[in-house]
Amino acid sequence: MSNSNQNNSKGVSVVSEAVCQEIMGRPEAFTAVENVFAAMAKNTAYNFPVIREAIGHADALYGFKSGFDRDGMVLGLKSGGYWPGNIQLDLTNHQSTVILFDPDTGKLKSLVGGNYLTAVRTAASSAVSIAHLARKDAKVLGMVGAGHQSTFQLRAAVEQRNFEKVVAWNFHPEQLPNLAAVAEELGLPFESVTREELGAQADVIITITSAFEALIDADWIKPGTHIACMGTDTKGKQEVDAKLLSTATVFTDELAQSVSIGEAQHAIAAGLIQEADIVPIGEVINGTKPGRTCDKQITLFDGTGVGLQDLAVASVAAELAEAKGQATYFNL
Amino acid sequence: MSNSNQNNSKGVSVVSEAVCQEIMGRPEAFTAVENVFAAMAKNTAYNFPVIREAIGHADALYGFKSGFDRDGMVLGLKSGGYWPGNIQLDLTNHQSTVILFDPDTGKLKSLVGGNYLTAVRTAASSAVSIAHLARKDAKVLGMVGAGHQSTFQLRAAVEQRNFEKVVAWNFHPEQLPNLAAVAEELGLPFESVTREELGAQADVIITITSAFEALIDADWIKPGTHIACMGTDTKGKQEVDAKLLSTATVFTDELAQSVSIGEAQHAIAAGLIQEADIVPIGEVINGTKPGRTCDKQITLFDGTGVGLQDLAVASVAAELAEAKGQATYFNL
Repeated sequence: MSNSNQNNSKGVSVVSEAVCQEIMGRPEAFTAVENVFAAMAKNTAYNFPVIREAIGHADALYGFKSGFDRDGMVLGLKSGGYWPGNIQLDLTNHQSTVILFDPDTGKLKSLVGGNYLTAVRTAASSAVSIAHLARKDAKVLGMVGAGHQSTFQLRAAVEQRNFEKVVAWNFHPEQLPNLAAVAEELGLPFESVTREELGAQADVIITITSAFEALIDADWIKPGTHIACMGTDTKGKQEVDAKLLSTATVFTDELAQSVSIGEAQHAIAAGLIQEADIVPIGEVINGTKPGRTCDKQITLFDGTGVGLQDLAVASVAAELAEAKGQATYFNL
Repeated sequence: MSNSNQNNSKGVSVVSEAVCQEIMGRPEAFTAVENVFAAMAKNTAYNFPVIREAIGHADALYGFKSGFDRDGMVLGLKSGGYWPGNIQLDLTNHQSTVILFDPDTGKLKSLVGGNYLTAVRTAASSAVSIAHLARKDAKVLGMVGAGHQSTFQLRAAVEQRNFEKVVAWNFHPEQLPNLAAVAEELGLPFESVTREELGAQADVIITITSAFEALIDADWIKPGTHIACMGTDTKGKQEVDAKLLSTATVFTDELAQSVSIGEAQHAIAAGLIQEADIVPIGEVINGTKPGRTCDKQITLFDGTGVGLQDLAVASVAAELAEAKGQATYFNL
């Protein structure tokens, strides 16, 4: 019996951060994330329990998101965490690695840098929600948040509708020029606005902040808006008024996370909505539940971020890198 | 800001199964496991929740054991599982990989083959229990179970006391010659016995089976015996009579696992003992709780197997391989 990787002709593939940035396109990420949301709704893919630990060293938060997609035959985990002191070491604060296993044998299959892919899959998630839930005639895109991740959300969002303008607000206004530069590159006028003005103008809103209190009042959102709340992934975080979840039709990537650590946690806790009111977006993708049913409806997507998204994009990146000869290999 | 491993001069180290077999000695494994049990008892090391999933494909059980040892500065996980069909593919059914991260930055640090190391750390665990709990004058070692893992337990056990004889029983007697050959190699007489005879003769007993019912009656165990129960790591498994846990003084690697998935689960469920009756062996190692206090006492070690053991031995293997130039490297 063999302990080595002899049966695997080339060994374990390695796809570096640099290669991920070169080969992973937004359309491929969109399709991978859309497919895995669909598989989750069919119960052919599921996420395992999340491990998330404050390790008591370097103020780090560390953990794993993992799962198995039987349709895509993707098994593995994203390991990673948040090391706030890294910036002083010239390293990104978020450190992620995706580790894929062969579902037929359990053997280690691929290691894929997860930092860039995490940004790409998070952007693909709000883009999938826009594609399936926003009005076709949406013209103004509102961005709440202007950090590093916001530029990824913006690039993916503008490919879903014929947007004519970007309006944006950020808690730290000095970060807005970064987002404005991307809008300019994409040929879109950019306007810094108040939050009220943002609600009044925007047809589609993406919130991508680390806020712990509502930044957007329910009253500021006009009928017909689609809002993708992408920042809330922990107990206590919040981006929008809980009341908005009772006036909107609420969709999510994963129900279990939405009600516990997602944007819906507050509306659920306050009794404003029930878990049964929230629609997994995979059901909309599969056509088993309706998405937007009228122009006046407000749709809200609670994007909590699941391990299967990471595995899906990493699996695509590994296949592309292997096919293009851009993976390296080792034997264990 | 860099996403690559530039700050890490050589990159991520890889230590293959073959190198682990070559460099990982029993004394190093013993010390690593003893140290991590001690750290767990001091609460400077802790295991994260275990993920264990029946994935619904290839009859596989898959999951992760993970943790952080602040004393040893070891952070990571063992990923792996059980693929029952692997044997037909000339692969081991248990597939394990240890993945270590830098606790200061969260960056991926080392990949270490986990199949051989799992066997070595499990053997080190019962050896540590013998070193700290068995009578100094123990002469006869009893082995219950004669599968692949039993030979590792035997080799590590005989280094702890001046054993003069091995007595053994296995559900499938045709497997006993394998264990007998190792005893012979170690210069020890070997005798195949009934379970009752084994209890009557042995001063130290190791049970290492996959049993789901008691194989050893409480009445068969003579005063002064040390018994290390190493096979029970799942709800429903059982190796010895639950009554034995009320007559013996019970020790364990981790309390939480002992009462839920370890050998103690049955005695706890039956109300024969309380969680407070079970002593973490790290407390004995640290000298904060007594181990064996008299020659007539029966001591029982419930070895459930924790992620920190895997991380501890893998960290030592990585350091040895790196120092000896037997690691390979890649960049992510």
